[in-house]
Amino acid sequence: MRIALGIEYDGTDFCGWQRLKQDVSVQGALERALSMVAAHPVEVSCAGRTDAGVHGRCQVVHFDTDANRDMRGWILGSCSNLPNSVAVLWAQPVPDSFHARYAARSRRYRYHLLNRPVRAALDARYVTWERLPLDAERMHVAAQSLLGEHDFSAFRALSCQAAHPRRSVLAVSVRREGEQLFVEIEANAFLHHMVRNIVGSLLPIGRGEQPVEWMGELLAGRDRQVAGPTAPASGLTFIGPRYERHWHLPDEVSQP
Amino acid sequence: MRIALGIEYDGTDFCGWQRLKQDVSVQGALERALSMVAAHPVEVSCAGRTDAGVHGRCQVVHFDTDANRDMRGWILGSCSNLPNSVAVLWAQPVPDSFHARYAARSRRYRYHLLNRPVRAALDARYVTWERLPLDAERMHVAAQSLLGEHDFSAFRALSCQAAHPRRSVLAVSVRREGEQLFVEIEANAFLHHMVRNIVGSLLPIGRGEQPVEWMGELLAGRDRQVAGPTAPASGLTFIGPRYERHWHLPDEVSQP
Repeated sequence: MRIALGIEYDGTDFCGWQRLKQDVSVQGALERALSMVAAHPVEVSCAGRTDAGVHGRCQVVHFDTDANRDMRGWILGSCSNLPNSVAVLWAQPVPDSFHARYAARSRRYRYHLLNRPVRAALDARYVTWERLPLDAERMHVAAQSLLGEHDFSAFRALSCQAAHPRRSVLAVSVRREGEQLFVEIEANAFLHHMVRNIVGSLLPIGRGEQPVEWMGELLAGRDRQVAGPTAPASGLTFIGPRYERHWHLPDEVSQP
Repeated sequence: MRIALGIEYDGTDFCGWQRLKQDVSVQGALERALSMVAAHPVEVSCAGRTDAGVHGRCQVVHFDTDANRDMRGWILGSCSNLPNSVAVLWAQPVPDSFHARYAARSRRYRYHLLNRPVRAALDARYVTWERLPLDAERMHVAAQSLLGEHDFSAFRALSCQAAHPRRSVLAVSVRREGEQLFVEIEANAFLHHMVRNIVGSLLPIGRGEQPVEWMGELLAGRDRQVAGPTAPASGLTFIGPRYERHWHLPDEVSQP
């Protein structure tokens, strides 16, 4: 029997999603909790791995089990065996043909900037502080040059293990709410550090240090060396993947 | 010279606002930082003391100094000597007749509830989790019976040291945004645990266990024993005080 789960996590105190020897990962914590509920070892596959310090609003995983538990049992049982920084939001049986990673049609990320003269005290785990005034409208216009299918080598980490650098950006926006700026981006998939590297290049545009056209030039140049630095992990949240509606998953992870 | 400061803090890891022997307080951390900038011992007076685990969005304090620093120096110097969970938002010279506590005309608090079947993983420091469905509209209607000047003994902690239990509630609202509920309340001043005790009595009304009229009955009965339990500290944030406009303080702490 295959089960899909929605997972929320605060990534601050984890080495990232992926289970590694010794370090404390979200995957490791989740697999330990599920294994206790299942009473057999459980391995999960996720929609999108996240780095150390990156948060998850609705990560999706699937796993296989022959344990006979109702969905409420999987949710409550795993929540009570998880650290406070990880929660199982929902559980749902899925066909064996469902795969959390390969069935995902797109992924959404949100980057949260606090734009004021003084660093954050409240919400410090969830924001990246930018001291200099940012022009959200300039950043929004610049970001539109990312729309569509491109070679994103300019925003690809050296460590990226993807087979090729082409990705399709479906939507991207930058909006201000008072002292907060939100960069939201949806793509079929992402290269390693792609969102953080894009934000790192939008920041000089927002500060007025680079022209709006710079984003398109960086993209066309495909040179990671000349693009902006990688923005910090704390401001980044993986909102979640989107699947075709025929899987009957919750609205928040289904295509509109 | 008298200076007023706006202070933001995450109360999770503090014993509360007030400086006590041994325990780590927000006041103690702030006074240590200011004393380093001033190069003489500094004592602050605040608009409203908060309990352990309660957060501050814009607490206001004042202190006296003969050190000659510009306002930017007070802000940046104290921020660099404060823990990450406390920040000085602004600094402003005020007349000697200004007193952060006695000049405040009102105080505002916000209580943040996460209302869903599963506990919080993200934002766990800032919310109180309520598993059972809450009817925000019922809670809002019930809360309106608190408006005006009343004897709030029904919502007053045993430990309260106020001279009398009469307070004037100027505005109160309960609103839902998806899984989040926000209780906002403004009063001339608050008794000890008053907001948390009010929220603790609104919850049974929201769950449908008590009628909407219960709030008014509790208030009229003035009996702490029959009102709801004290809601947890984590969901509570002191938004800040409000002062008369002639003090020329920032808009967020001035009367509209």
